[in-house]
Amino acid sequence: MTLLIQPTSPELQLADWARTMSRSVLRQMIAVVSQPGILSFAGGLPDPELFPTQAFAEAMAQVLATDGLALQYRPPFPPLKRHIVNLMAQRGVTCTEEQVFITTGAQQGLNVLARLLLNPGGQVMLEEIVYTGAQQAVAPFLPDILTVPTDLQSGIDVDAVERHLAQGARPAFLYLIPEAHNPLGVSISRDKRTRLVELARFYGVPIVEDDPYGFLTYGDDWGMESRLLSDSASSLQSLPLRALDAEWVFYLGSFSKILAPGLRLGWLIAPEWLIPRLTVVKEAGDLETSGLMQRAVAAYLDAGHLPGHLAKLRRAYGRRRDAMLSALACHFPADARWTEPHGGMFIWVELPDGMDTAVLLETAVAQE
Amino acid sequence: MTLLIQPTSPELQLADWARTMSRSVLRQMIAVVSQPGILSFAGGLPDPELFPTQAFAEAMAQVLATDGLALQYRPPFPPLKRHIVNLMAQRGVTCTEEQVFITTGAQQGLNVLARLLLNPGGQVMLEEIVYTGAQQAVAPFLPDILTVPTDLQSGIDVDAVERHLAQGARPAFLYLIPEAHNPLGVSISRDKRTRLVELARFYGVPIVEDDPYGFLTYGDDWGMESRLLSDSASSLQSLPLRALDAEWVFYLGSFSKILAPGLRLGWLIAPEWLIPRLTVVKEAGDLETSGLMQRAVAAYLDAGHLPGHLAKLRRAYGRRRDAMLSALACHFPADARWTEPHGGMFIWVELPDGMDTAVLLETAVAQE
Repeated sequence: MTLLIQPTSPELQLADWARTMSRSVLRQMIAVVSQPGILSFAGGLPDPELFPTQAFAEAMAQVLATDGLALQYRPPFPPLKRHIVNLMAQRGVTCTEEQVFITTGAQQGLNVLARLLLNPGGQVMLEEIVYTGAQQAVAPFLPDILTVPTDLQSGIDVDAVERHLAQGARPAFLYLIPEAHNPLGVSISRDKRTRLVELARFYGVPIVEDDPYGFLTYGDDWGMESRLLSDSASSLQSLPLRALDAEWVFYLGSFSKILAPGLRLGWLIAPEWLIPRLTVVKEAGDLETSGLMQRAVAAYLDAGHLPGHLAKLRRAYGRRRDAMLSALACHFPADARWTEPHGGMFIWVELPDGMDTAVLLETAVAQE
Repeated sequence: MTLLIQPTSPELQLADWARTMSRSVLRQMIAVVSQPGILSFAGGLPDPELFPTQAFAEAMAQVLATDGLALQYRPPFPPLKRHIVNLMAQRGVTCTEEQVFITTGAQQGLNVLARLLLNPGGQVMLEEIVYTGAQQAVAPFLPDILTVPTDLQSGIDVDAVERHLAQGARPAFLYLIPEAHNPLGVSISRDKRTRLVELARFYGVPIVEDDPYGFLTYGDDWGMESRLLSDSASSLQSLPLRALDAEWVFYLGSFSKILAPGLRLGWLIAPEWLIPRLTVVKEAGDLETSGLMQRAVAAYLDAGHLPGHLAKLRRAYGRRRDAMLSALACHFPADARWTEPHGGMFIWVELPDGMDTAVLLETAVAQE
């Protein structure tokens, strides 16, 4: 072998996009709020006291005691897909098991879709204020991001979406959260949902509909119960976009907020012809989603626990929303504004001009 | 809203690379071999009868019964990192907790590294015969793949690696499996390991060292026990490349083969300054690795089960390797050739010229 004489020390070369990368502030906060004594209202952290830990532990124990292949490499678990089809029906969405794609959390669904649909340097459409995980999923593509504003009463500005498309933009997809937007708390109005689906079809631009909070709606006009008990006009109000179109809307579902995030289990509803392609992308990412976790969650669902659990969650989180709205009205400046969410875990507060919330946070953490 | 009249039906546009995608044959086989009555020698499928199911179930139950935050979003679990540092020490690798990056299986480690290091259309170096998951991890980048041959006795052709680099190639990384190569079964000779690390340093080309079988070595000269009981020259033979260089070698570890694949848990050892960047890439992929699974595996390791379990695995798989080598000698044509692996799960067989193994597989499945 030739003697190697190194004139200068080489440096590790990262991919170009890595020079632009930034850490999600929300994700960084998880380390802070994991400390004892901190009660966090930041981020979409569900309350661990509401996790169905005991019932899930029983389901997990049952699977490990009875299924000798629970810990093996396995294809996606069909009984879990059947449960997901039933869950989707409760959201007013008709789909088949062949359209269900199991993911390691909804974030993976978004990541896999970005990989399948977006070219390096390609275009995507996002709201100006958007879930940070959506920005992270597209950042490695160094994309051209078309932004649209969001109305705090009715959701994404569909006129702005239409203007972009009418002017010729053809983004790889439009990402949105239809129900209880993270972080704005707003749900998209019924009229806007219809228009969005029409635009997607007409211009051939897929919509990625991220719906982690769709099962967590509070109050009669938006609640699950009313949707199940009637098919009146008002019950249509919160139908997911996927209920209006099965071809151009990709639906992301998650067990993180309705069971627990530590399961890392979610799903994607997509046209059946895309499932083999999504499978290839996912295999490159993590081979498969834990078969053990799929079986444990299916066993939990088999036992019939979910409807009662969801009712409990809606009562508990609904009360907390009310308490927070009361506290805001009582303690916040008169010229502060905030959203009044019909579901989910987010209230968006706008403080009077001139208040620096980063400074406010430091002061609050130091003083309290 | 303008009335939308659609002249022609738009079609969904996939990213350019998706036109080139192909499914891993190995992954497709998992669906076939999951059927009852099929005993598969294809792919790296560990024997589920050797999974530590009972002990793991106890660890899982303990975590769910005692840790109220086991199901919450959580940062990587420090006690699991400490266990991994100890495991690495058993492989002769010195590292710190700050260099340990928890992944959702080793495939995710590879995927995250590809995303961090490889530009679209960039260059990577792979062996001609390579683990299919490595091809899948780089395929979306439409990379320029430099290939190098592999010697069935001593592993990757280091002269070929050097020729590429001396001629000016600077791939984003070189991927290899040092021990019990998938699918060739060969382990890289000691001399070649030293040369590879020197080349990596000199040319500034990182090596991604994938080591799922490093704990599954059979026989005195390659076995774990001998490495632990002596530091003679022969014990150095199977030191991972990461033991020889901490800057240019990224080590991928996995619990899939030493515990069970259904856990979807692995790790990456990387320079500490890269960990925050790897975290950003991973968050975009699946936010985090199941905190529940991290805690359950840590509890299993706390209980001290692993050394005995590894000894059991090495005995059992060593006997099976011997049985398969005997069967090959007894039943295969005289001019067939195969590797005699020192570890892992793969024997590479080359049949006489003119035999079509695809046809042979169909015949065998139909007849047996």
